[in-house]
Amino acid sequence: MRVEAIDLFYLSMPEVLDIGDGSQDALLVRVSAGGEVGYGECEAAPLPSIASLVCPMSHSACKPVAASVLGAKLDDPSDIVRIGDAVRANSLDLLQADHTLSGIDMALWDLLGKRLSEPVWKLVGWQRTFPKTPYFSVLFGDTPEETLAKARHARSRGFRAAKFGWGPFGRHTVVEDESQIAAAREGLGEDGILLIDAGTVWNADLAAARQRLPALMRARAAWLEEPFVSGALTEYKQLSYESGAVGIAGGEGCHNFFMAKHMIDFAGLTYVQIDAGRIGGISVARQVADYALSKGVTYVNHTFTSHLALSASLQPYAGIENHEICEYPAEPKPLALAITRNHLLPGSDGQVRLPDTPGLGMEVNPEGLAPYLVDTEIRVRGKTLYRTPALSATTSPPPSPPDHQKDWQPE
Amino acid sequence: MRVEAIDLFYLSMPEVLDIGDGSQDALLVRVSAGGEVGYGECEAAPLPSIASLVCPMSHSACKPVAASVLGAKLDDPSDIVRIGDAVRANSLDLLQADHTLSGIDMALWDLLGKRLSEPVWKLVGWQRTFPKTPYFSVLFGDTPEETLAKARHARSRGFRAAKFGWGPFGRHTVVEDESQIAAAREGLGEDGILLIDAGTVWNADLAAARQRLPALMRARAAWLEEPFVSGALTEYKQLSYESGAVGIAGGEGCHNFFMAKHMIDFAGLTYVQIDAGRIGGISVARQVADYALSKGVTYVNHTFTSHLALSASLQPYAGIENHEICEYPAEPKPLALAITRNHLLPGSDGQVRLPDTPGLGMEVNPEGLAPYLVDTEIRVRGKTLYRTPALSATTSPPPSPPDHQKDWQPE
Repeated sequence: MRVEAIDLFYLSMPEVLDIGDGSQDALLVRVSAGGEVGYGECEAAPLPSIASLVCPMSHSACKPVAASVLGAKLDDPSDIVRIGDAVRANSLDLLQADHTLSGIDMALWDLLGKRLSEPVWKLVGWQRTFPKTPYFSVLFGDTPEETLAKARHARSRGFRAAKFGWGPFGRHTVVEDESQIAAAREGLGEDGILLIDAGTVWNADLAAARQRLPALMRARAAWLEEPFVSGALTEYKQLSYESGAVGIAGGEGCHNFFMAKHMIDFAGLTYVQIDAGRIGGISVARQVADYALSKGVTYVNHTFTSHLALSASLQPYAGIENHEICEYPAEPKPLALAITRNHLLPGSDGQVRLPDTPGLGMEVNPEGLAPYLVDTEIRVRGKTLYRTPALSATTSPPPSPPDHQKDWQPE
Repeated sequence: MRVEAIDLFYLSMPEVLDIGDGSQDALLVRVSAGGEVGYGECEAAPLPSIASLVCPMSHSACKPVAASVLGAKLDDPSDIVRIGDAVRANSLDLLQADHTLSGIDMALWDLLGKRLSEPVWKLVGWQRTFPKTPYFSVLFGDTPEETLAKARHARSRGFRAAKFGWGPFGRHTVVEDESQIAAAREGLGEDGILLIDAGTVWNADLAAARQRLPALMRARAAWLEEPFVSGALTEYKQLSYESGAVGIAGGEGCHNFFMAKHMIDFAGLTYVQIDAGRIGGISVARQVADYALSKGVTYVNHTFTSHLALSASLQPYAGIENHEICEYPAEPKPLALAITRNHLLPGSDGQVRLPDTPGLGMEVNPEGLAPYLVDTEIRVRGKTLYRTPALSATTSPPPSPPDHQKDWQPE
């Protein structure tokens, strides 16, 4: 079959707050081929991603993402890898393309899995899946008291691991951060797995990160995440020499395989955290999982949004038994929960399992998303390149393509 | 003063061909503050870059680029560095932001230079400038005969250095590439400086690149550029071990300081090529020039478009005497030439010199760009976030800001 249509849906909460909560909007991707549809989600700014799908060509290595996907052959897994390679070559100079490709890649896997009646984890080469230990992933409270309450709430919901990040952490004094870390440990109990996320707050400032190590060690944090931006390999490496039993985690900013490889090779990471919605999709994330395994670095998903994104982000390392921790969005906005009818709830043992059903195993609920749909239109030279498509899933025949899709039909 | 307006102009040739010529369209940036305007140019896909300027906020680290620039203080060079840092932090998860910032940063330097009556190269810390040896930068011909003619043309125009890239190179047999390389050398003469640009055609395939080394050595190519994508550090390094007197060049794909640093640290480069229109502007490029100098790697500009971009791309290393080669767009499309009234023509000695006049020293010709202006409109929730602004430069008072700019006034 051939890829017939790519529809992007910009979804948003009515109000987006200036906080580190990435579940406030979403870019849902629907791909149609051979009478099937597949869904994916970009962890990306919606409007620039939409523009990167449909923009006019600038030159041979700066084409819109759609140019490499629409009309492409889609019969087996190697076709999806080939589509990704084509996007990276044909959109080499279009920076946003990796983020846009990510959601499309997920949707292609979902679609192919449905077509072949196989779960994606099997199509990407795993024989079986292993349950993951979810960590309750939330923002720090504004005060240590709020953080304490959040940590207690995590335990009361059955989570034995929790991660606290962003918010005030790293932005004020070392003493205030120590109070936050101690509150998280107290609320989680002595036997909880405590994870701390600095959200790149120190950019590349080694000294600032170093000052927080004693409190992290005292609280027996399992990791300190993103003390620096992804590029600060030297600073990462030095901090990892000094952090003792506190592992260093990072990698969510990686938008291609090489960036993740460099973090694994040069940053002294204990954990590499990959967002399948940014790195180029499940295909690239799967490559990183293999590479991490070969280098003794533990792979962890990065997911703060929907359960569609959660399923997609677990597929790449579903078959690695001892890479067992996984991020679990704990306080997503209603929009993120509305994207799917089913959700990956922890079992009675507290573990999360991927579905065995075809594709990503998630039932997207287009009709339920109407309240969140952001009406968007892009016009260039009087021609509509993009207009928010209808949410209701039409499968066969595919919807009549907008202008930009007509330009890129199969040859 | 405060930044009052950012206007983006999407310019394009009437027809954009599927060839590696990046001068077929442009994104011109005009920044207004204190009754002055400054100009810059993003080496980027125009539509996604426009979208990244004006898109709604997704969360605290995924804000539109405008949010960190409009209303910001602009009185001295440190303000420009601070604006760039703010964009990188506030738009951390907006991938396209680095490309968009690049043109804005140039425009800020241009504006500040005009305000302070100083050339930009002085504001970025150089005491004087040194002339550069321009290389005539063109695409390979479709045949060796065409390449031969292009090389002879370069010499006849007084250039003693020339670079041939993209086109058929690397896409067919080794023998065909050898013919192309030999034709370039023949046309350039034995004493010419010959440079070859593979345009990432081998992605990360070391064996494919290695096969071309004998012909490059025979032709005494001074460098092989971009055999691989920017991330393939290991492959770059290995090739540089084997390439003898043929230097390895790369880096144009870098969109932040760290990427360039990694190429300098880990890729075995002889030359690091920085496009100020992609890496985050003159500010970041200047940092890379210092770092390259400290590591014994030669800095070279990457410029294939206008003379505005050329001036901006030479500022970062204008004061380094022995980093003397510079890329010179030799066959730009009429659009690229129309952007400025003046051009950086080689002197009678064949050398290119930066102007001593304030700012970037280039006189942008807005009125002459009307034929190339691409009418563009972006609407979200019924609100116009972007509409192509008028080309005629209004300075004081600034134009009434569109809706998105009203959202981000100085506090």
